[in-house]
Amino acid sequence: MTKQDMQAEQKKEAAEPTQTAVRSQGSFLDRTLVRLVNLWRDVSDTVTGTVDAGLSAEGDIRRLRDQMQACLEGRGGEVSARARAAGLGRTYLSLDELGRERFLRLLAGAFDADRTEIDAAVAALQEAGPDDRPKAESTLRAALEAPRTRLLTQFNALPQGVKFLVDLRADLMAHARKDATLASLDEDLRRLLESWFDIGFLDLRRMTWDAPAALLEKLIAYEAVHEIRSWEDLKNRLDSDRRCFAFFHPRMPDEPLIFVEVALVDGMADNIHDLLDEKAPLVDPARNADTAIFYSISNAQRGLGGISFGGFLIKRVVDLLTTEYPGLKTFATLSPIPGFRRWLSREIEAGRTPLTPAEADAICQVTGFEEPNDALTRALDAEHWHQDEHMIEALRGPLMRLSAEYLVNEKRRGTRAVDPVAHFHLTNGARVERLNWLGDTTANGMARSAGMMVNYLYVSDRIEENHESYTGEGRVTASSSVTRLLKS
Amino acid sequence: MTKQDMQAEQKKEAAEPTQTAVRSQGSFLDRTLVRLVNLWRDVSDTVTGTVDAGLSAEGDIRRLRDQMQACLEGRGGEVSARARAAGLGRTYLSLDELGRERFLRLLAGAFDADRTEIDAAVAALQEAGPDDRPKAESTLRAALEAPRTRLLTQFNALPQGVKFLVDLRADLMAHARKDATLASLDEDLRRLLESWFDIGFLDLRRMTWDAPAALLEKLIAYEAVHEIRSWEDLKNRLDSDRRCFAFFHPRMPDEPLIFVEVALVDGMADNIHDLLDEKAPLVDPARNADTAIFYSISNAQRGLGGISFGGFLIKRVVDLLTTEYPGLKTFATLSPIPGFRRWLSREIEAGRTPLTPAEADAICQVTGFEEPNDALTRALDAEHWHQDEHMIEALRGPLMRLSAEYLVNEKRRGTRAVDPVAHFHLTNGARVERLNWLGDTTANGMARSAGMMVNYLYVSDRIEENHESYTGEGRVTASSSVTRLLKS
Amino acid sequence: MTKQDMQAEQKKEAAEPTQTAVRSQGSFLDRTLVRLVNLWRDVSDTVTGTVDAGLSAEGDIRRLRDQMQACLEGRGGEVSARARAAGLGRTYLSLDELGRERFLRLLAGAFDADRTEIDAAVAALQEAGPDDRPKAESTLRAALEAPRTRLLTQFNALPQGVKFLVDLRADLMAHARKDATLASLDEDLRRLLESWFDIGFLDLRRMTWDAPAALLEKLIAYEAVHEIRSWEDLKNRLDSDRRCFAFFHPRMPDEPLIFVEVALVDGMADNIHDLLDEKAPLVDPARNADTAIFYSISNAQRGLGGISFGGFLIKRVVDLLTTEYPGLKTFATLSPIPGFRRWLSREIEAGRTPLTPAEADAICQVTGFEEPNDALTRALDAEHWHQDEHMIEALRGPLMRLSAEYLVNEKRRGTRAVDPVAHFHLTNGARVERLNWLGDTTANGMARSAGMMVNYLYVSDRIEENHESYTGEGRVTASSSVTRLLKS
Amino acid sequence: MTKQDMQAEQKKEAAEPTQTAVRSQGSFLDRTLVRLVNLWRDVSDTVTGTVDAGLSAEGDIRRLRDQMQACLEGRGGEVSARARAAGLGRTYLSLDELGRERFLRLLAGAFDADRTEIDAAVAALQEAGPDDRPKAESTLRAALEAPRTRLLTQFNALPQGVKFLVDLRADLMAHARKDATLASLDEDLRRLLESWFDIGFLDLRRMTWDAPAALLEKLIAYEAVHEIRSWEDLKNRLDSDRRCFAFFHPRMPDEPLIFVEVALVDGMADNIHDLLDEKAPLVDPARNADTAIFYSISNAQRGLGGISFGGFLIKRVVDLLTTEYPGLKTFATLSPIPGFRRWLSREIEAGRTPLTPAEADAICQVTGFEEPNDALTRALDAEHWHQDEHMIEALRGPLMRLSAEYLVNEKRRGTRAVDPVAHFHLTNGARVERLNWLGDTTANGMARSAGMMVNYLYVSDRIEENHESYTGEGRVTASSSVTRLLKS
Repeated sequence: MTKQDMQAEQKKEAAEPTQTAVRSQGSFLDRTLVRLVNLWRDVSDTVTGTVDAGLSAEGDIRRLRDQMQACLEGRGGEVSARARAAGLGRTYLSLDELGRERFLRLLAGAFDADRTEIDAAVAALQEAGPDDRPKAESTLRAALEAPRTRLLTQFNALPQGVKFLVDLRADLMAHARKDATLASLDEDLRRLLESWFDIGFLDLRRMTWDAPAALLEKLIAYEAVHEIRSWEDLKNRLDSDRRCFAFFHPRMPDEPLIFVEVALVDGMADNIHDLLDEKAPLVDPARNADTAIFYSISNAQRGLGGISFGGFLIKRVVDLLTTEYPGLKTFATLSPIPGFRRWLSREIEAGRTPLTPAEADAICQVTGFEEPNDALTRALDAEHWHQDEHMIEALRGPLMRLSAEYLVNEKRRGTRAVDPVAHFHLTNGARVERLNWLGDTTANGMARSAGMMVNYLYVSDRIEENHESYTGEGRVTASSSVTRLLKS
Repeated sequence: MTKQDMQAEQKKEAAEPTQTAVRSQGSFLDRTLVRLVNLWRDVSDTVTGTVDAGLSAEGDIRRLRDQMQACLEGRGGEVSARARAAGLGRTYLSLDELGRERFLRLLAGAFDADRTEIDAAVAALQEAGPDDRPKAESTLRAALEAPRTRLLTQFNALPQGVKFLVDLRADLMAHARKDATLASLDEDLRRLLESWFDIGFLDLRRMTWDAPAALLEKLIAYEAVHEIRSWEDLKNRLDSDRRCFAFFHPRMPDEPLIFVEVALVDGMADNIHDLLDEKAPLVDPARNADTAIFYSISNAQRGLGGISFGGFLIKRVVDLLTTEYPGLKTFATLSPIPGFRRWLSREIEAGRTPLTPAEADAICQVTGFEEPNDALTRALDAEHWHQDEHMIEALRGPLMRLSAEYLVNEKRRGTRAVDPVAHFHLTNGARVERLNWLGDTTANGMARSAGMMVNYLYVSDRIEENHESYTGEGRVTASSSVTRLLKS
Repeated sequence: MTKQDMQAEQKKEAAEPTQTAVRSQGSFLDRTLVRLVNLWRDVSDTVTGTVDAGLSAEGDIRRLRDQMQACLEGRGGEVSARARAAGLGRTYLSLDELGRERFLRLLAGAFDADRTEIDAAVAALQEAGPDDRPKAESTLRAALEAPRTRLLTQFNALPQGVKFLVDLRADLMAHARKDATLASLDEDLRRLLESWFDIGFLDLRRMTWDAPAALLEKLIAYEAVHEIRSWEDLKNRLDSDRRCFAFFHPRMPDEPLIFVEVALVDGMADNIHDLLDEKAPLVDPARNADTAIFYSISNAQRGLGGISFGGFLIKRVVDLLTTEYPGLKTFATLSPIPGFRRWLSREIEAGRTPLTPAEADAICQVTGFEEPNDALTRALDAEHWHQDEHMIEALRGPLMRLSAEYLVNEKRRGTRAVDPVAHFHLTNGARVERLNWLGDTTANGMARSAGMMVNYLYVSDRIEENHESYTGEGRVTASSSVTRLLKS
Repeated sequence: MTKQDMQAEQKKEAAEPTQTAVRSQGSFLDRTLVRLVNLWRDVSDTVTGTVDAGLSAEGDIRRLRDQMQACLEGRGGEVSARARAAGLGRTYLSLDELGRERFLRLLAGAFDADRTEIDAAVAALQEAGPDDRPKAESTLRAALEAPRTRLLTQFNALPQGVKFLVDLRADLMAHARKDATLASLDEDLRRLLESWFDIGFLDLRRMTWDAPAALLEKLIAYEAVHEIRSWEDLKNRLDSDRRCFAFFHPRMPDEPLIFVEVALVDGMADNIHDLLDEKAPLVDPARNADTAIFYSISNAQRGLGGISFGGFLIKRVVDLLTTEYPGLKTFATLSPIPGFRRWLSREIEAGRTPLTPAEADAICQVTGFEEPNDALTRALDAEHWHQDEHMIEALRGPLMRLSAEYLVNEKRRGTRAVDPVAHFHLTNGARVERLNWLGDTTANGMARSAGMMVNYLYVSDRIEENHESYTGEGRVTASSSVTRLLKS
């Protein structure tokens, strides 16, 4: 692969509008792995023979199982175990997708917890008297611990070993959806990573223009909400009235886990274009800023899916900013509503008419269609409708109201907000503060959020209460301006 | 407490001959705690009322339980939880010994795993079909996890919180011996610390004379084998032909966990006095050293008891030194035999006569006693016998033989060497290489090891084999010079 | 100024083909100064009144003179002196070009050495006996030292004060050409900076992709030979088979003084396009590189003009690379011949015909012009002639020969090579190794060097000899391939 | 030399009461030099032959001169010049005292400025018209610059080269007193070091207990006012209510140039014993301290004699402390009066009777001597007189008065305080604030200051005025309590 190919690929990744909060990191991962293979070659020269990329030979699988077994037993002490782990890692990295799945399946199947042992421990627990009970519980707990977990733990002593496991889990998650055994391995690995990546072990670092270019480059690649278009765009987001903070793990010092971008502004921002405008005048945050706007938060490690850092990150950053700038009074997000358009389509498909008769009339008139749902669909599909005054007039009312309804009332299983971003901030104790008409008119913003954006507001002495009422009863707290929209 | 008092106390600690491999750190711990109380005052102002040092009031205990409950539930989000944990920590630190025991008992008892929940999960597991089994195991595993573990985890986000837990466990270990509930809490905390202090997360650092004085001071305090008498003595142990390495945890960067002292010498050292002699000429390790002698290894954190770093430390240091000095051919220890004298006394008390008739005669003659065992006891009790030629002549033969027998043949439960230092190195795969007559004639060395020292030898391509045969069958590998002693 | 304006301006700077080895740094300097003004506001609040940007008022000038006098006398001790220097600095920075010239003129004129004092010291020296002579010389030396030098020295204690003086000298150099008093001040400042920036005080640092973006950005701005077109281009120049080294001063840690870019390649590179090609395959420098090509060297601080670091930088880098890669056998440059085209035009204007009759015929035929000089001029002026086979055939012979003649034989005052890049490398002891036809076909390369490039070769045990013969007799050492061109 | 010898020697140095403000650093210097010889061996293998330690052979001197000449001319470029300088340095370090003197004499004599050149430049200056004058001055200035200065400059590019020059000057200063040529070389080197060690280039660092032991060890060795008796004593001086600050040069990062010790206390300290008492209770400087006492200031580099950092150090530290502790209202020293006893002895020897009749009577009575001067001398010579109440009663009055007179009125050449410590602080703008009876009853304090100590007070808005009146008219500012003593 030439340098240009690499860069082009990376560029492409950076340029694609992303559908989920975690970007596809395909080629990045691959390159990291190439580096790992070289690193680990020094640790392990003893890897037995080469294996075809698809791991199709029976003999290879048998040899691999023996190698795993030896690694697990720690034969020859820690140093040998380390070399064996490195050997296993190199083998894994040399495999193609199918080969990796086979590798994972072998690990999941051959080194699962021993059912006989579990059943025996269960029986012993049931017979244990009060005094023997603690010991019986301890034995059962040990029996439930699959050996494969101990095997995975061995990798943390290797250079970049923790990153390897995180990336291995990214592979695993894809397969886990369709396979119970792999799902069970995924669960073991998730628990292991969760204990290692406990919030107490993470470092919060501010990212500035003085950070290494090799690190800043990763922000460009991992940004999942509003694409970073160039180094100038990036510099603008790290500038004097902008802030960027990231969590790091001591064993992955070059890899951000999650990062948040903040703008220090005067008044609550109502659209993303002004925030990202490189021509916008600078604000002196010590004098003129009263509001911190969290306008982007991106998970950088797909393999840490299901382990949550975001809420803590926001609160730590609020603490830091409050100390540095006592003038900041308002802490709010400026967020997309990424599930809005899809929800609206489904409503229509399901035959529900979300429009009032007056709204329906207006839209039919502007679009020239007779069926209101059809008219709404066509209107939202039309390119650049946000530049057409008539369309704007016809759509503003219904979309403001519908997005409010979507955020406040639409629940999954009765308690969980359908919109993933809403669910995240509501769980953290924020409230739905304001809907912003045409807050994001990029292609991506139009396609997913119908151009709408929303501010979630964090009020420190309401956070607990909001959090309780949302996680308890599924009740969404919203400002009066939003609830007024619902009633209209 | 005046500064001088503090220093006197610390001096005293440093000066006392230690009975175990981990020094009593009483006052050190106390001072650390004082610092913690101040640190955490900033985090938490909300701690409810003061509590008497003995934690004797019913009401206080009830309030404390509520506080623990709130902390556990994470009411009000992570930041509040953090403040609550800090409040609990400050309360704990303000208690006296009895109060702390009550605190720990409360934590152990009120936040243990829920038996009903466990029993239900067990029942569900037993009824589960093959497909439901993974989920049922997962549920059972969760049920077995005591809530108190999650509560303890909260402390890691506090400044110095990990050190707090390590020191709390040092308190706990004392109580755990006599109380099953506390033992069960201790077991939970041990497992938690074991996962955090996994060898893969530790940093190996060389300690030199360029290290901060505040850190070097701790080496003086924690040294457990051969007391560091002064800063000059310390400097000598860090000098050009000496090495000192320690493991650190990223969240306790100022606290060594364990450290080892190494001398680079020409030929295998046979006594400790030459190694610690500040008048000894310098060796150029790059040219004249063929042997690395590990002459002291000390655990620094009592609260990490039962979690083993030593074997890995030695092997990592061997790796490092091999790379830096290709001329090093031999890696060995110079170790005390700390259980030898006590074992000998017990043998005699038990009526076993460890001496041959000729040996018995010689000792009786030199000491003027008639009963050989009595004579041997009196001889070893005599002050400065090692300066008396006749005594030396009479004792050398039997003590060399007996120490060899003690090391090679004395086992607990048939497989574990009675001597703790021997057990440590044999488990690591070393062999008993050479016994050294009058290798340590300090008061401590005479009292515990009868002046004997031993070299354990690490031969890299024998380590695995030695380790297997010792841990498997309890067979101790020894050199021919040592086995000859046995036969004599 | 909006952010975009700033960036556009900086972009423009970076994009303009540069005529000299030091880029115009106008706006960069201005922004640095803005930062300085803020920094120094904290040091000095005592600056007396504001001054108009042109410094036109008599009263202002008088007050400024008093302030300089007070600063010079160190009234009130060092701290006051520091505040006064900061005040003077802020005043200077607030002035426009004319105001600055007046400021400098005031400093030069009012604080020059005292002629009466010098004359008295001269007289004393002439009358001094042998014993008094050292003291008399010392007195004379002190008299010759202008007070303004001491005043300038005061700035080094300010934050960024050394950078301020360097930039002030950049201003001064422009004026010094036309004014003897300012030239004399410039000479004082040059001597001061020369002693501070003595090579022994500089730090050599490798610039990698892990360097702060804020620093790498300056490489883009300061690159003076082959424009850095993008961050990808930059990354490519810092990559595994590329190296970049810079000198820094301890008091200007964020400002490179000079930097060199090196490619590690297999065989001596003959054109710049391959070196800068982002599609080119990577070379493993430890295995496949036998040659280090120095393809760009840029001075970054205009205000350090006349103080030479380049030769030392090259030699230090050669030392470093030799140690790291013993496989490197050849150290050479790939350099432009920036004065070649201009020299050729002057030759023609002066009526000298540089072509042989055969060459003249060929060129006339290809171009359709009758007069050979005219034909040559037109040919070289034609856009894209290097893409026309007939042109190439007609021009290759004469341009190879003429560029060889230009480099080897054209001297200023008989001993100094006319070409500035040639003069630099010949002074350092390199030799003219090879001429490269169409080595640089960028617009800039065609316009200045007629597409030619040259390799200067550094052979370590010939450097001294080459240096002596060039600096002594003006004799240029060249390879046989180059001398053959001369004879042809 | 064994390790113990080294340490004993260093101990001795640290223990000796010092007579001057800069400690003899004999053996320290020697050891540094040994290290240098090794460092420079790598740079230079080309040193021509070995030389006897006394440098007595004519041929050796001739060869050395050639080597200096080659080094000066920079033959073969910078790298060769560097190797040659390292060779010269190694030769110098291998010489004994006499050999070094010869080396320095050679350097001073053979590479002095050229008188013919100077005389020609003087003549040209005298004939120069107004336009040629700047150039003529420049030429003369260059002619006055001795080549040996350029040669010395070469050393700064060597590792530890700046330290080498500083130590070389320490050697040189000893010889310079008795030899005009060497004095002239010393003057050149002093000017060179003065420009390099300009205050603007120095780093101020706080020394804490977290500093490297290798650095703290130097504070113990270099402390020149109140001996640091142990590491505990040192720790006490760096503790929470103590401060220590030092200046460093970027090219000598491991060598303090000068350091000051400060105590943060409540009220102006009146004796040194309380300040250094390790049993004294800790003061919380943020709450209870209103006064910063500068109780020790030591120059660490004898070779920087005559280059002043002390005044600036005090003022920078005052600034720092003021910012950190706004509660500090008073900044004062607690200083010895090191010349007081000697001055008193000279007064008496010169036949002046410093006592009033009543004082004389009292002393004669207490001592039993008849002649008052004799009685005073005997009294002060008596061991432990400060523990005898009668002596105290008789001596307090006269010694308080006489020390006030000594400090305020005794001048050298009419304007400079005889006492060196007084001269230092008065020049800095402090005033004589209070005399402290029996402020220092150590052997050293009794022997030099007759047990007296003095507080010099720094009042920030009086510093300029005090400085002016002292340096201008030699007028010493004193508090009313001190002036009252004069009148009594």
